[in-house]
This record gives sequence, C-alpha cells and structure tokens, in this order.
Amino acid sequence: MHTEPGDLVAALDIGGTKIAGALVDGRGRLLRRVRRATPADGDAAAVMAAVAAVLGELAAAAEWSGVRAVGIGSAGPVDASAGCVSPVNVPGWRDFPLVAEVTAASGGLPVVLVGDGVAMTAAEHWQGAARGHDNALCMVVSTGVGGGLVLGGRLHPGPTGNAGHIGHISVDLDGDRCACGGRGCVERIASGPNIARRALAEGWRPGADGDASAQAVAAAARAGDEAARASFARAARALAAGIAATATLVEVDVAVVGGGVAGAGEVLFGPLRACLREYAALSFAAGVRVVPARLGADAGLVGAAAAAAGELGLWGLPGNASGI
Amino acid sequence: MHTEPGDLVAALDIGGTKIAGALVDGRGRLLRRVRRATPADGDAAAVMAAVAAVLGELAAAAEWSGVRAVGIGSAGPVDASAGCVSPVNVPGWRDFPLVAEVTAASGGLPVVLVGDGVAMTAAEHWQGAARGHDNALCMVVSTGVGGGLVLGGRLHPGPTGNAGHIGHISVDLDGDRCACGGRGCVERIASGPNIARRALAEGWRPGADGDASAQAVAAAARAGDEAARASFARAARALAAGIAATATLVEVDVAVVGGGVAGAGEVLFGPLRACLREYAALSFAAGVRVVPARLGADAGLVGAAAAAAGELGLWGLPGNASGI
Repeated sequence: MHTEPGDLVAALDIGGTKIAGALVDGRGRLLRRVRRATPADGDAAAVMAAVAAVLGELAAAAEWSGVRAVGIGSAGPVDASAGCVSPVNVPGWRDFPLVAEVTAASGGLPVVLVGDGVAMTAAEHWQGAARGHDNALCMVVSTGVGGGLVLGGRLHPGPTGNAGHIGHISVDLDGDRCACGGRGCVERIASGPNIARRALAEGWRPGADGDASAQAVAAAARAGDEAARASFARAARALAAGIAATATLVEVDVAVVGGGVAGAGEVLFGPLRACLREYAALSFAAGVRVVPARLGADAGLVGAAAAAAGELGLWGLPGNASGI
Repeated sequence: MHTEPGDLVAALDIGGTKIAGALVDGRGRLLRRVRRATPADGDAAAVMAAVAAVLGELAAAAEWSGVRAVGIGSAGPVDASAGCVSPVNVPGWRDFPLVAEVTAASGGLPVVLVGDGVAMTAAEHWQGAARGHDNALCMVVSTGVGGGLVLGGRLHPGPTGNAGHIGHISVDLDGDRCACGGRGCVERIASGPNIARRALAEGWRPGADGDASAQAVAAAARAGDEAARASFARAARALAAGIAATATLVEVDVAVVGGGVAGAGEVLFGPLRACLREYAALSFAAGVRVVPARLGADAGLVGAAAAAAGELGLWGLPGNASGI
C-alpha cells in the first residue's frame, strides 16, 4: 500500500461494556476519541448500530479524509480468518460478521481484526514496555486474563487472531473448572474476581465501604493482611507458571503485565518474580523478565491501529507474522 | 545460496547414547549412515572426537562432493545463537562451541544447529504427519519429553533453537519437582520412566522377565491392569494439558506425538484425545487433533538436514521463522 506521512487509521476497541473509537496517526497519537456504552443485552443489530455510531462520529471529523484503514481489537473469541467475532460478554454476537459490516459502514476501507489481547500487545511492542523486544508476551490481568505474542520481531496473532491467550492455559490440571470449559486455567486463579473470591474464602473482610474488589484486596495486602497477601501470592504463582510455559514454548525474553490487577504493584510483582525463578528453569527460559505495561487504557486503540498498519504496510511497521 | 538438484546435506543427530550421521538428499533419503556410541562420560575433546569420526567417515564417501551444508540436531539445551550446546546427558559439554568445531571439521561448510525436538519437527513437517500443516506441534515422548513448533508454515526454532520445549512447561503448579529444576512439568508426569514409576507405586508388578519399562506397563494396560491403565491415563492428562496450552498460546491445529511411549498406541492416545477436549475448550483451540508421528528413528537426521536446508535456502524448503 502506498503510504503518506499523514495517513491515519481508524481504531475500534470493542468490549463488553464500551465501544471506543479513535483516529490514530503514525506516531500513535489519538486525534479524535469517541465512546459508546455497549448494548451488551441487545441483539446483533443493536450492538452493530453502536459500532456504526462510533464510526459515523469519527467519519464526521475533518481528519477522516486521511484514514486509510480500520483496525479492530475485539473481545474474544474472534475469528480473524472468517472476519467474525463471538465475544463472551456480548451474547447477541455469535459468529457476527464484524469485518464485512465495518467494511460497509466505513465506505469500503480495508479492515483488520484482531483479539483485544493481540491489540494490546501490538501497542506495547510499538510504543510501550515490549518496544525493542523481538520475542515478547504481553498480558492484561483484569476481570479476565488475556494476552498476545510478538515472535521474531513481529506481532503473532495466529491464523484466527487469538494467539497468546495465556488466561486459558491450564497450570493446574486437577484444578477448578474455568468459565471457558477448561480446568485450572491461569484466569481461574489469577483474575481480579478470583483474587477477591479467594481472599474472602481465606478470611479477608472488606472495609466499611464494602469494597470487595481485587484493588481492595491489594490495599489490604499492602497493609499486611495475611489472607489478602496469600491470595495475591497464589495469583502470582499461576501467572509465573503461565509466563514460564510461554518462555519455554516460544522463547520470549520479556513478559509485559498490564490491567487493573497489575496496578497492585509489588504485592503482585514481588511474588511473581520469585515464583518465575521456580518455573522458568531451563537456561533459555530462565532469563525472562517481568515488567509492568506502560500504556494504559488507550492500549486497545493504539494497538488496533498498529495491528492494522502492520498488516497493511502502513507507517513502516513490521508485518504481522501469521497472515491474518 | 545457489542450489543444484544433487545438493546434499550432512546431518548429525547427537544424543546422550549415540551420535548418528548421514548424507541426506533433497527427497529426504539417507544415502550414507554412520553411527558411534557417545562417550558420555568423556571430556569435551573425547565427545568431539566421536563427532569428528562420524564426519570423517561421511567425508570419505564419494557423495561428499555434493554436500553443501551440515545440519545438527543436538540433545539440549542448545544455544543456536552462540553455536554452543550443553546436553544434560553429556556433562563434558557445557557451552561447548559445537558449531565452530564442526565448521572446522567439515572444511568450512555452513553449519546449522537446532535442538533435537526442533529437528524432529522439521522432519515431520517436511515428510511426516505435520506435512501440509502451517501451525503444528511435534513432540517426542520417550525417556524425556521434547518438541518443536511450526508456525505460519515455517519451522520456529526460536532465537536459541529450543522453542517447543513442551516437556518442561508446568501443568501442575503444586506438583513434584522436575529434574530441570521446575515443578509439575509435562515430562515429570508423562515420560516413560515416570509412567513406570507411577504404575509400580500404584501396584503394578513386572512379569517374569523383570521388564519394568513403560513398554511393559503399556502391555499390562492393554491386558486390563488397572494400575498400568491409570498411569497411562495420568500421562495422557498431562500431555493433553500441554498440547491444549500450546494450541491456546500459538494456535496449532495438529499435535504429532512420536517416541517410544507413543508406541503404546490407544492405551495412550485414547485417554489423550478424551482429555484434550477437557483442556482445549476455546473455539480456536478445540479443533486441535492428535496424531502419531510417521517418521521413526531417522527423524532426527532427516530433520537436522531439513532445518539446515530451510535456513540456507536449499531444496526449496521454507526458511526458518526466527533467524537462528
């Protein structure tokens, strides 16, 4: 694709609670921002109408004439090879042909779809904590646990745009059933709701404000509450086993951890780094480092734009590795 | 590299018990075969002398004039980026500069080094059960558990040539210590010696011949021995969790299982396929199929040649993915 310095990508970040949009330039700046609540209980057309409204608002901006492509990061699972999405938290969309719909709604621009974990990874590799790393795992630890991979210097979405789904690998083959249908998944142990659930079960109690979130557990852990500390340590152990598995399988040298649970800081990162030494034992994996993500809530939009730019040859970004 | 139809690769398969060599042609045929016992208790020079003897015998063949490169598959860990190997079972070699030594011993031919699991994968992708699959995991389940990856149609050795090391990912974060230093590794549960150990602990007893190998456990399992069946079922569960983790992380659509333990047949593959449905739950991973390897003991030699040919552009094989 012939590219100009002023080329822009329209980015969409589609989740179970909000649909965000922005026009992104080749330096990763967000020129326009739009946001709608996701009508998560609506039918397929209602959810698509919200997406179209976001796109319409972006298209009304003067800068729209510089838009060369649309990049979408969507809650998963996605199927980039078919251009469809089936987000767990958006029941109205099952095998919904999002790429075709957005292509039509954007007047025929090229559209690139990846999972939200892959989008966040594209952003951290382009401008964040994975910059300069040719082999990296990036993950979001929040209500769920997602992730993505950079391999050989390029984003690795996999054939369907879901690669790097570290939240749903099993690190406890006899463990509890996970919402995904699996057993002992990293997410089942390390997500925010599971950290809170376990702290409560082990005797932690919320303060007067009744806040029973993982953030409240983190505050209690910092104040020395043993049940809260133990719950974070258990989450850290599961994350360490998952990161070590990834380093052992595909030789990443850095694991970037973002999301709300990562905001707990040393309460999470301290035991995580200690446990990592226990599971990443082989020489080629033992050097993997864990670092906090650098991009915040905008990572989804910046990364959706970066994934599209890589795929389409814009902005000099390296192409994606797996031909999505 | 300019290539001719008659171009050959000299292949070396270096393990803890034997050093095998062959001249391999572009159809994967072994034209000459040489084999020496590995002087595993010898010092670095003694082990290298055995390698040099294998190379010397190959070089004495009339076909040597057609050899364009040397491909090495070595017991790991290897460090392809530094050209060094440190095989666990060859204590005399620690960071041994194998590539430089073989370059000198072969008169300056280009030398490509990969781990033995990666070599086996190159062979199965070229001519075996992974042929035609752009995203595949290949594994050897034997005294240890090793493996390798094909991603996006190309061998993925990783920066140091060790990627796909599925035997040492943890699927049981509270499990037993593994010889690698980790905990709950796939190998700690699914290798032949661990299958035999567990069957014995659960009450299985060898027959009159005293054979306490995994093969003997497999025979007992086929005959209905409950402890023997349970031990294979446990190994199958660990392999299933590891294969599912790989499919979830990098989207492989086939897992090729070879090695002596795979010779147990349905005693292993039956529970393996059943357990896989339990762990590979997400839509994009649920379709992963498990199939037996097709190439036998020659996979290491064929694959070492194929990895070198891919890296150097011989025989029209696709290049390796990660710039080893």
